[in-house]
Amino acid sequence: MLIVKKFGGTSVANKERIFNVARRCIEDYKNGNDVVVVLSAMGKYTDELIAMAQDISEKPPKREMDMLFTIGEQMSVALMSMAMDSLGVPAVSLNAFQVAMHTTSVYGNARLKRIDTERIRRELDSRKIVVVTGFQGIDKYDDYTTLGRGGSDTTAVALAAALHADACEIYTDVDGVYTADPRKVPSARKLKEITYDEMLDLATLGAGVLHNRSVEMAKKYGVPLVVRSSLNTSEGTVVKEEVTVERMLISGVALDTEAVRIAVIGLKDVPGVAFKLFDVLAKKNINVDVILQSIGRAGTKDISFTVDGKDLDEAVATLEEHQARLGYKEIHSERNVAKLSIVGAGMMSNPGVAAKMFESLYNEGVNINMISTSEIRVTVLINEKDGIRAMNAVHDAFNLAD
Amino acid sequence: MLIVKKFGGTSVANKERIFNVARRCIEDYKNGNDVVVVLSAMGKYTDELIAMAQDISEKPPKREMDMLFTIGEQMSVALMSMAMDSLGVPAVSLNAFQVAMHTTSVYGNARLKRIDTERIRRELDSRKIVVVTGFQGIDKYDDYTTLGRGGSDTTAVALAAALHADACEIYTDVDGVYTADPRKVPSARKLKEITYDEMLDLATLGAGVLHNRSVEMAKKYGVPLVVRSSLNTSEGTVVKEEVTVERMLISGVALDTEAVRIAVIGLKDVPGVAFKLFDVLAKKNINVDVILQSIGRAGTKDISFTVDGKDLDEAVATLEEHQARLGYKEIHSERNVAKLSIVGAGMMSNPGVAAKMFESLYNEGVNINMISTSEIRVTVLINEKDGIRAMNAVHDAFNLAD
Repeated sequence: MLIVKKFGGTSVANKERIFNVARRCIEDYKNGNDVVVVLSAMGKYTDELIAMAQDISEKPPKREMDMLFTIGEQMSVALMSMAMDSLGVPAVSLNAFQVAMHTTSVYGNARLKRIDTERIRRELDSRKIVVVTGFQGIDKYDDYTTLGRGGSDTTAVALAAALHADACEIYTDVDGVYTADPRKVPSARKLKEITYDEMLDLATLGAGVLHNRSVEMAKKYGVPLVVRSSLNTSEGTVVKEEVTVERMLISGVALDTEAVRIAVIGLKDVPGVAFKLFDVLAKKNINVDVILQSIGRAGTKDISFTVDGKDLDEAVATLEEHQARLGYKEIHSERNVAKLSIVGAGMMSNPGVAAKMFESLYNEGVNINMISTSEIRVTVLINEKDGIRAMNAVHDAFNLAD
Repeated sequence: MLIVKKFGGTSVANKERIFNVARRCIEDYKNGNDVVVVLSAMGKYTDELIAMAQDISEKPPKREMDMLFTIGEQMSVALMSMAMDSLGVPAVSLNAFQVAMHTTSVYGNARLKRIDTERIRRELDSRKIVVVTGFQGIDKYDDYTTLGRGGSDTTAVALAAALHADACEIYTDVDGVYTADPRKVPSARKLKEITYDEMLDLATLGAGVLHNRSVEMAKKYGVPLVVRSSLNTSEGTVVKEEVTVERMLISGVALDTEAVRIAVIGLKDVPGVAFKLFDVLAKKNINVDVILQSIGRAGTKDISFTVDGKDLDEAVATLEEHQARLGYKEIHSERNVAKLSIVGAGMMSNPGVAAKMFESLYNEGVNINMISTSEIRVTVLINEKDGIRAMNAVHDAFNLAD
């Protein structure tokens, strides 16, 4: 078997944990498997690097930020290889240049294009554990890029796809995918299996276990994913195309408090104005989520939408830059919002699901600001202060704790 | 003009110093020059990385050590580029892969083989300051290597040679080459000029301003070197082929307290035994310096020599491994020794120089253990505790303070 194992920053935050991970990998190796390990930067090291850069410059160039970021994973892989070597097992660390991991040229948010597998194959053939830097890539100019949030998961899935791995195990500080974040909903229950599509909606909507790009890629290439804990040996959750156990109506409830709402007021009510608005944001790689369009005063319209909190400043600046062309009156933004979502392949054939969610929120006195739905998801925008209470109410309403 | 400027770790140890260096480079840039900056890791960061590795493994693989080391310079160049950018000047940081810096495959002590200049030229042509990682390279396997002690100086000189730079400025925490280390000899005087050969002997012998490899390379390619201070704007010392100012008898006194002495006792007195002994050490890349061969008891001979302190363990282990083949009786080693040297092109035509040195040491009551000479150098091995006193005595005897 060829196994790709990915460990996040908390799993390699100190010496003890590094050796813990090394031993888990060596166990698979000694059972005759080929083992590729993908690592993030240690603990909060990426945050330290950000602080370092911000001490130097208020707005450091993104190209140089990526140059700085990539040292975090390189530190992890070098130390991990040393740990494995000291345990008597040959290991080799590889960075994005050495693999090589080819990406697009969007610094801070690049997409993987192609992974060369020759070097990794050669190292595996000589019976080494291969320890690869997650999160980073190189573009066509030979510059470092990073893959954005959750980038190491994407690296692991992409490597598993490129190497036709038999399994891709994502180790986190939780031991699987839950019906809700157990830190916020005490009665949350771990799922044995979940579909790629459900996981995608959960990832996108702030459940925070896996990044959506990694799940998209796993779905596209049929990579068998397992989400497991790096701290214990419990079985984890399998993410795959079809769930074989008995289906629940919905699989989980997710809360995203990072979202912010932007309201663009007084747009001219002419065709194409919404397109133009979202086009200028898309060109800056700003993802727009829940959208609400409403009639404003005197032949104008208003458009509200959510973006990730980190994109707020850039989104507002971009819209202000294009105010003449878009012809709106003013922009408001609101940070104290949260997106609450329910996800489940089972709701496709059950029209009453959304109504049940709204009812439970009404009973709890939670106000709904905006609504967005897909075939397997219902998302509502609520006040941030209501978030955890609302999440528990919905979790109870669907009996997810059973 | 194309200027290569190299700044060591202390020159970039904190935010204030990084901006200090950035401003000096920008001054040259704004005067219309092309500027390439070579940086070491910040302050004592390399030592921190060593401590990190040693916490994981007693004997980390050298290949992985280099993988870990290289992040130090990458951090420096990324932060420096950010600082320059924040001062309104476009800059781009490049690591050993991006340049690319091709070296031999000796991890921890590689030699530069070839530098591609295409990327640097392109960045200079678009009027950017190019900030390059010192100390590091890549080998034919696409693995990181490091150049050993003083490696960033070598990087700077090699870049200056490859780019046919008009000047190569080495910035240090001293403001030039002195007749002796001013911290040890208060009356030491700064030299205006010094020849490559004198500098080579001073570098090899522990004067510590420039690494010998960088001076060798500068001599080979005729790179005009200037040693200057990163803390003030004084003129520094020019290192070149011929000195044009009036010559002194000797140029400087150097003390090296890192040396250790190894004595191999009771070797068979047969031809080739010395060759075999130094051959096994050379194969481990251990540099041997002052050598003394003497007749031992009963048809045997003893060979004593000095090596750098960091090589002691490996040298002794290597000799023990080959005891059968070399046929010696025992090995002693002594850490408390120091090499004291005088260097000067002027001594070639002045036979009394060595005698004058020995006399001054005799008057000071300093015992001489071993002697080694070259055309422009006399080195004696003395007890470490006598080092600074002996250095001052010799400095005075040659009137170097005048």
